[in-house]
Amino acid sequence: MTDPAWLTLREAAAAVRDRRLSSRELTEAVLARARRLNPRLNAVISFDDEDALAAADRADATAPSGPLHGVPLAHKDMFHRAGKVVTCGSALRRGFRPPDAAHVLDRLAGAGAFPWGALHMVEFAFGVTGHNAAFGPARNPHDPSRITGGSSSGSGAAVAAGLSFASLGSDTGGSVRLPSHFCGVTGLKTSFGLVSRAGAMPLSASLDTIGALARDAADLRLLLPLIAGADPRDPATGAPWRKDARAAKEMTIGVADAFYVEDLHPAVARACDAAIETFRALGVRVRTVRLPDQRAFSAAAVTILGSEAAALHRNGLRDHADLYGPQTRARLLNGFAYPAALYVDALRARGPGLAAQIEAMDACDAILAPTAPFPAPAIAETDVATGAEALIADVSRFMRPVNYLGLPALALPAGASDAGLPVGVQLMGRPGRDDALLTLGEAFQAATDHHLRRPRDPT
Amino acid sequence: MTDPAWLTLREAAAAVRDRRLSSRELTEAVLARARRLNPRLNAVISFDDEDALAAADRADATAPSGPLHGVPLAHKDMFHRAGKVVTCGSALRRGFRPPDAAHVLDRLAGAGAFPWGALHMVEFAFGVTGHNAAFGPARNPHDPSRITGGSSSGSGAAVAAGLSFASLGSDTGGSVRLPSHFCGVTGLKTSFGLVSRAGAMPLSASLDTIGALARDAADLRLLLPLIAGADPRDPATGAPWRKDARAAKEMTIGVADAFYVEDLHPAVARACDAAIETFRALGVRVRTVRLPDQRAFSAAAVTILGSEAAALHRNGLRDHADLYGPQTRARLLNGFAYPAALYVDALRARGPGLAAQIEAMDACDAILAPTAPFPAPAIAETDVATGAEALIADVSRFMRPVNYLGLPALALPAGASDAGLPVGVQLMGRPGRDDALLTLGEAFQAATDHHLRRPRDPT
Repeated sequence: MTDPAWLTLREAAAAVRDRRLSSRELTEAVLARARRLNPRLNAVISFDDEDALAAADRADATAPSGPLHGVPLAHKDMFHRAGKVVTCGSALRRGFRPPDAAHVLDRLAGAGAFPWGALHMVEFAFGVTGHNAAFGPARNPHDPSRITGGSSSGSGAAVAAGLSFASLGSDTGGSVRLPSHFCGVTGLKTSFGLVSRAGAMPLSASLDTIGALARDAADLRLLLPLIAGADPRDPATGAPWRKDARAAKEMTIGVADAFYVEDLHPAVARACDAAIETFRALGVRVRTVRLPDQRAFSAAAVTILGSEAAALHRNGLRDHADLYGPQTRARLLNGFAYPAALYVDALRARGPGLAAQIEAMDACDAILAPTAPFPAPAIAETDVATGAEALIADVSRFMRPVNYLGLPALALPAGASDAGLPVGVQLMGRPGRDDALLTLGEAFQAATDHHLRRPRDPT
Repeated sequence: MTDPAWLTLREAAAAVRDRRLSSRELTEAVLARARRLNPRLNAVISFDDEDALAAADRADATAPSGPLHGVPLAHKDMFHRAGKVVTCGSALRRGFRPPDAAHVLDRLAGAGAFPWGALHMVEFAFGVTGHNAAFGPARNPHDPSRITGGSSSGSGAAVAAGLSFASLGSDTGGSVRLPSHFCGVTGLKTSFGLVSRAGAMPLSASLDTIGALARDAADLRLLLPLIAGADPRDPATGAPWRKDARAAKEMTIGVADAFYVEDLHPAVARACDAAIETFRALGVRVRTVRLPDQRAFSAAAVTILGSEAAALHRNGLRDHADLYGPQTRARLLNGFAYPAALYVDALRARGPGLAAQIEAMDACDAILAPTAPFPAPAIAETDVATGAEALIADVSRFMRPVNYLGLPALALPAGASDAGLPVGVQLMGRPGRDDALLTLGEAFQAATDHHLRRPRDPT
């Protein structure tokens, strides 16, 4: 048998359920691998070996109940775990022990899963590279001198390196999709309001969404419905996961004629072209669409994010400015410069913007676009000290329209650079139609092997 | 019989229903009075004699249906009437003819009422005095050299002068209560979300409420339930009018130990003291309460109002700055100065603020306070040209906490200055408990005659 840490989520769950593998064996394999590789990857903020092994033994002693019975997972360190330190990637929170668990972790526990630790993230999720002044940068398993992408940096690195079968993250401006792209894993940014954010660290109430990263789309389809749906503690929620019974060949993909096609690294351009051909070969209809001004959507998202993040951190910055890292502090302070009228306008324009986008999608189930314009840059290149703000901004160039409009988006590994760094494409869907994206993703992954490419273990 | 124009709303409705008076007689009496007095009061923006008389004839030809069958009313000129010019008090809107009627006017039409015209208002409802550069100032029936208060200036003047039995207004920062105070009528600012704003001019989506002015609280109790309740076109709505079966003597009133007691004109201080004694004599329990910082609530309301109004008028100011009056333009431009983070904070602090207020109310059904700190100032004193911004701000000193927290508040005539100008008190209630305020108001008005004092007709 292969190293159990490299099983897919559904294989791992099936192995425990069928008693081919005990939960303890699975948990020990994951912990051993994480303990061994973490010094090079810096993907983990806290290990919970003892609790995890106790949970594994309990699982082994009871009859399988939920679909993830006995499966250890680790998530971005922003989801409350009762009584545990939840850092949110910040020195400010090193003593923060919430009394209750996040809704999503309660749901996963109900399905039988338990956490073995908590993963690296960008400080307060406000950054796209994986830098963190308090905990050091997360490192890309494909090349530890390169960024993971952020802010779900540890989730991207852990799933790519075989430290977690899947991992919850959040996506306010690309934080699930960028680590998926740079680390070569599959990540779903969910529709706004699909997954409750109760007990998860907020960054921007109007934009925050919880999503997940996994080895493939089929694992996401197992995981996401388990955490989706109405929760009175998050008034943005309401609709449950909506199953789409169609096959990929009954679907249509749109390709934008501008914005998402500009200034692409050759590997990314190749990956997009090849993905389009793959979908065509699968019988998916592909057509060109003319989308409304995505730059205006991006600007509105930046205004909303900056304004809401600044408001959330006003007291923190006043009382403990020294405990913020320089990148995060600078970004938060920028947020105080937005006029309220601009913010109100950005929120008001969202409905009309969504209507325009959906009309422009012209019955397409998804728009295919690059996730990021290039493969992972070096950590040194994107450090604020080198004055690399333009490069940092470029990282998230294709992210924000989806966040602004509340759309789901699936990031898929779709190729590699000549140097072997992963690159990906994203499928941007229709609100609440997350399942259709997974259908397309599964079809794509049945026809390609980009998602199967593993990094060599760093030494 | 008295001049039918001076009937209460319920008397007028009963007279038509019982065929003691035809709807045409009633409508002709109101129109004649309005035509006669309006040149001195400037309370009316448009007359609809022809439509009103046709509606009256239709009412006279059919069996009474709703509780306002055959009753002509006029409202603040901000409620859409299908195909009619709705000015919103602005030169910008002089050609604006909405295709559909406002929800509240549809509801009143369903109850049998019809409009005979539309009333003066402050330009875009953004002002508290009754000034209007495009239409000239509304004039107080008790002294036409003095302000009516605003922004429901025409509603206050018309109800006080016997031109309308009742009149819909709006209250975003005092716009129902201030004209009630200065003109000596009874006005209810409703709980946020109680009355649909669909088809009504917006000023600040987070604060706007629709209310009404009438001769007494009993008329408001007839009118308000007819327009309250859920409307899918205004997502802030939900709960229906909630009847409170208790008598006033089963209720408790709180009197604040600060803020609402500071720097009062002697007539206002006297009116408050007398009102407290009246309520005590009625068997209402009265106790002193210590409210949370009302200045902070006021500041937050000003931030929200300024920000949202600026956003709404951004395009208008850009394209037609010359069509705004100087007061309104200056106020709107001020709104662009608020940082978005402050605005977000102001919205976020609303829940905790409401919780603190309700706890401080300590089971009181209402807090009794002055409505404005003095009787109506002169129009000249409060003209922007005289640099009277401090006085203008002082007018609304006691208004904004209620708007910020979404509470209902009932303005009651409660006395007069030595010069014969009305002054009033407000009862600030608990969210959704508007009916309790009307019970207290009816009991107060059964024991006092401030609401019966009519201005002499101006000559």
